[in-house]
Amino acid sequence: MQPRVLQVCGADLNRFVARTKTCGELRSADVGQEVTLCGWIQYQRQGLFVVLRDFQGLTQILIPQDETDSPLKKILCDTPVESVVRVTGKVVSRPPGQANPRIPTGEIEVKAETAEVLNSCKKLPFEMKDFMKKNEALRMQYRYLDLRSFQLQHNLRLRSQMVMRMREYLCNCYGFVDVETPTLFKRTPGGAKEFVVPSREPGKFYSLPQSPQQFKQLLMIGGLDRYFQVARCYRDEGSKPDRQPEFTQIDIEMSFVDQAGIQALIEGLLQYSWPKEKGSLEIPFPSISYSEALALYGTDKPDTRFGMKIVDVSHVLSNVEAGFLQKSLSGPEGTVKAICIPQGARHLQNKDLESLRELAKSQFNQEIMHFILRSDGTVKSQLSRYLNEEQKLELIRTAQASTDDVVLLAAGAHKKVCSALGKMRLESADLLEEKGVALRDSSAFHFWWVVDFPLFLLNEENPTKLESAHHPFTAPLPSDEHLLYTEPAKVRGQHYDLVLNGSEIGGGSIRIHSAKQQRFILQSVLKEDSELLSHLLEALESGAPPHGGIALGLDRLICLIVGAPSIRDVIAFPKSLKGRDLMSSAPDYLTPEELEPYHIQVSWPSVQAEASSN
Amino acid sequence: MQPRVLQVCGADLNRFVARTKTCGELRSADVGQEVTLCGWIQYQRQGLFVVLRDFQGLTQILIPQDETDSPLKKILCDTPVESVVRVTGKVVSRPPGQANPRIPTGEIEVKAETAEVLNSCKKLPFEMKDFMKKNEALRMQYRYLDLRSFQLQHNLRLRSQMVMRMREYLCNCYGFVDVETPTLFKRTPGGAKEFVVPSREPGKFYSLPQSPQQFKQLLMIGGLDRYFQVARCYRDEGSKPDRQPEFTQIDIEMSFVDQAGIQALIEGLLQYSWPKEKGSLEIPFPSISYSEALALYGTDKPDTRFGMKIVDVSHVLSNVEAGFLQKSLSGPEGTVKAICIPQGARHLQNKDLESLRELAKSQFNQEIMHFILRSDGTVKSQLSRYLNEEQKLELIRTAQASTDDVVLLAAGAHKKVCSALGKMRLESADLLEEKGVALRDSSAFHFWWVVDFPLFLLNEENPTKLESAHHPFTAPLPSDEHLLYTEPAKVRGQHYDLVLNGSEIGGGSIRIHSAKQQRFILQSVLKEDSELLSHLLEALESGAPPHGGIALGLDRLICLIVGAPSIRDVIAFPKSLKGRDLMSSAPDYLTPEELEPYHIQVSWPSVQAEASSN
Repeated sequence: MQPRVLQVCGADLNRFVARTKTCGELRSADVGQEVTLCGWIQYQRQGLFVVLRDFQGLTQILIPQDETDSPLKKILCDTPVESVVRVTGKVVSRPPGQANPRIPTGEIEVKAETAEVLNSCKKLPFEMKDFMKKNEALRMQYRYLDLRSFQLQHNLRLRSQMVMRMREYLCNCYGFVDVETPTLFKRTPGGAKEFVVPSREPGKFYSLPQSPQQFKQLLMIGGLDRYFQVARCYRDEGSKPDRQPEFTQIDIEMSFVDQAGIQALIEGLLQYSWPKEKGSLEIPFPSISYSEALALYGTDKPDTRFGMKIVDVSHVLSNVEAGFLQKSLSGPEGTVKAICIPQGARHLQNKDLESLRELAKSQFNQEIMHFILRSDGTVKSQLSRYLNEEQKLELIRTAQASTDDVVLLAAGAHKKVCSALGKMRLESADLLEEKGVALRDSSAFHFWWVVDFPLFLLNEENPTKLESAHHPFTAPLPSDEHLLYTEPAKVRGQHYDLVLNGSEIGGGSIRIHSAKQQRFILQSVLKEDSELLSHLLEALESGAPPHGGIALGLDRLICLIVGAPSIRDVIAFPKSLKGRDLMSSAPDYLTPEELEPYHIQVSWPSVQAEASSN
Repeated sequence: MQPRVLQVCGADLNRFVARTKTCGELRSADVGQEVTLCGWIQYQRQGLFVVLRDFQGLTQILIPQDETDSPLKKILCDTPVESVVRVTGKVVSRPPGQANPRIPTGEIEVKAETAEVLNSCKKLPFEMKDFMKKNEALRMQYRYLDLRSFQLQHNLRLRSQMVMRMREYLCNCYGFVDVETPTLFKRTPGGAKEFVVPSREPGKFYSLPQSPQQFKQLLMIGGLDRYFQVARCYRDEGSKPDRQPEFTQIDIEMSFVDQAGIQALIEGLLQYSWPKEKGSLEIPFPSISYSEALALYGTDKPDTRFGMKIVDVSHVLSNVEAGFLQKSLSGPEGTVKAICIPQGARHLQNKDLESLRELAKSQFNQEIMHFILRSDGTVKSQLSRYLNEEQKLELIRTAQASTDDVVLLAAGAHKKVCSALGKMRLESADLLEEKGVALRDSSAFHFWWVVDFPLFLLNEENPTKLESAHHPFTAPLPSDEHLLYTEPAKVRGQHYDLVLNGSEIGGGSIRIHSAKQQRFILQSVLKEDSELLSHLLEALESGAPPHGGIALGLDRLICLIVGAPSIRDVIAFPKSLKGRDLMSSAPDYLTPEELEPYHIQVSWPSVQAEASSN
């Protein structure tokens, strides 16, 4: 097992340091050279060999067996594994038949002449070779050991190199300016997920913003023209799976640009920075509207690596005399839709179908019917008794079902039906893959632009109120602008999401640059206190250029590229689900004295309870 | 006045956007071209011309005067200055004699054919041309206007490009890995200047660290080998002049490296990234020991752009029968030292000398005597009556004083005397420069390594206690290691500072990689609670390679390179002296409801006062 770590071509890895070669670079051509290696003892074998490891690979060290070499032998044999040693010796060919073709250094070994223990390793709480099998909490507690793994070395190096390529593209090819923006900022309207930082002024707090949104717009107003930043952002969401309280986005903003301009920029960016080992990236990426994505995939993050699209079967069932169907179809936006699970009858058991039904019920309050096309041509379905033969055939044809396929059907309001079937589509794909059916190509990268989002959504708790679908700075589509004053819920925004393999990895918009329009949306549509944004409104009146931008979620993007199970695998020091650093045990208690300069005190839950009972 | 902004050679600045050219790039060779420019109206002249500005320069737009063009003329003449417009037209030569040699586009103008107001600018609170004369608070409140200034555009672009070059050097030339480390972390021992961030766990807080010190060491222990990060750091110092609560450092760590290796790396880094317009950088940089820097310049941050070094005159005065001198010389480390202010008698008035004396008294509790060599060969000094002619001549010779020079003398303990004279040296240089004497070359860049620092200092409040001169992870000089156990105050550390023109712009060290030595220093020398660092101590036992690193203060470095008066001029959105963002007025008040999820409440000063009086 050799590290598959990335190398920067032409980088000099041995300058400034005490080695002459890394443990990954010696080849037959180097035989005869005198070399010095520094590395960790990976394992020792029969007093004959030691295998040394560093970030670049493994090299076998041959231990001399002469009596006179016994001190050297002692060092190499008796030093515990994972200790750090420096070895000087001569590169020799391995004896015939003993080359190891599985590692790049497998044709040579280094005959040790001197060795020095640079640091001895105590007995570790587990053996390194078992480490990856240990539970994640233990791996996070000893993150510095986990980092020695080939996989984490690979992930972090790929991340570093991809970001470097992105910078070359933005800075060197297109003249973007890398500007650092503050993270100690003012609370943004509706910024419920922002961490707060007490200042030394009593009662006054900074907030850690979720993105540099305001700053990047202000930079455009300041004439910076083209801004980017690999920006640290913060989001306090309590415990959400595979989220981190701090995360990184590639943050971009341009003046005098439209939606097509930003899309072309990002396509070029990804193509330029795409890791060679992952093949080449075809651009432009296809686009799909929000409404089409919802209708076909039941989500605004379609995973197009497999079919099973949602089809409308309303016309087939419109004349079927079943009360619940008629009721659904005659309701607002009533529809009946279906997805077809290929070979579902062969792979899914009744309990699988049952669990899908329960999920739809609990998560979407949506009933799901199914419909199985048996090999004898008959149909098994709760609907059977309502359908005549012609209707059955039409349903099979519309759903494009073959023998042994399972068709899932849902009736009701369009959005709910599509969302539920979209979830069923993903869940049944997972189920099929668990049973060994190859459905999604894990080496495929399907990028999609999702566009034409609604600008506003109805507030879930109070459906008379509108809220921003993304954020209040998104400009409406020019063709929908007139609707702002009459039917704002129908306005579509100049917003675009970038989706990769069913995950949202970026989103952005053309921004509002008219102070009047921005004020109207904040005050009249969203009914928000625009006072918190008075500086931005004033800036928009002071010669703001038209501008737009985007942010790419770097952690998620790298995670999908390397195929890691979690973003924690592409972050050097991630926090646990509960936001804890298991290595240092942060966050931690502070003394009242330590809090005093910030004029805060802890409201202990018992104290709070007492206070409220008084 | 044309923007002196930097261009990335070969960058395509017009792709993806609504212009075909920037306002800075048209030349005679472009005459005849049809172009579209987007920019801000800089000024309008007599209904004939409009000058358009963007980040790259100024272009004169010729307004057509035909009757049929009156709508176009109206747009270009009546739109307020600082409005944003798009103009399409043809590049023409300026009429003979009307070229403007002071701007690169001065040979051409663009004859407008169409124009469109993209955004109109309201009346600004001041005229842009007066803006730089306004006070800094106003400029910070309207930072987005300040950013349009040539100087800030230049500073931010130079910063971006220099950092990009540093990244190329580190990543591409030497295989460093750019790793992002968390900013929500655990309080570090003695971390009194760390902002705190309440978590959702009652009583538990994150801290925003002052540097990624622990993480970079853990990355080395994790085998990353070569790490760097352009790292955001935080420091809550209340109001210190020209400091910011958040700042940026170029953070570097390497395994298997020694002090010379880090120094060579940094010299190469600065040479590689040095802005061409500032000339070339000679490397290696000279080195000076801490004790020599103190003796010659009275500081560990020597400004070597001018002379006036401190000289020891103890031997001249050792036999002078003046009680105060004898007392000083016989005290611990007793000495008499001097600096010579060239032509001081001609430029400095009595009140200047008086203010210097008062400064030394108030800041160092140090008496300063002076000694003026008059043109008639006589000496004017408080010391005159104690000195015979030979002693006077010897003093003049030792101080290398010429006619009209002023020699400042101080007697007392070595460190105090040197520190006071070091301060006198800088103050009198400032005074001379205020009077028009050219002393320091503002285009010179004097880099120095300062080395061989003491590892520990006596705690000022409790001189029986030792504290780390830099931080507790610095390794002792190998030659001094034995003193750790006997005379720790005499141990010198493997620490190095990088000084530029008298400002510290970086510092680093070879780290302790032995857990045993680290524990001894924490527990036995520093008497600190090592529990807070138990994870690091355990990591050092788990195969830690020898390692070292450095951090460069990016804000200060860029500030010195561009010659800005303050680091606020190289930061896009700086905070005021009191840590406020004057544009958004952060920090700001939060409601008790907003604080509730974090289990904290504000201790209002009146409440505190009441509580303490109870």
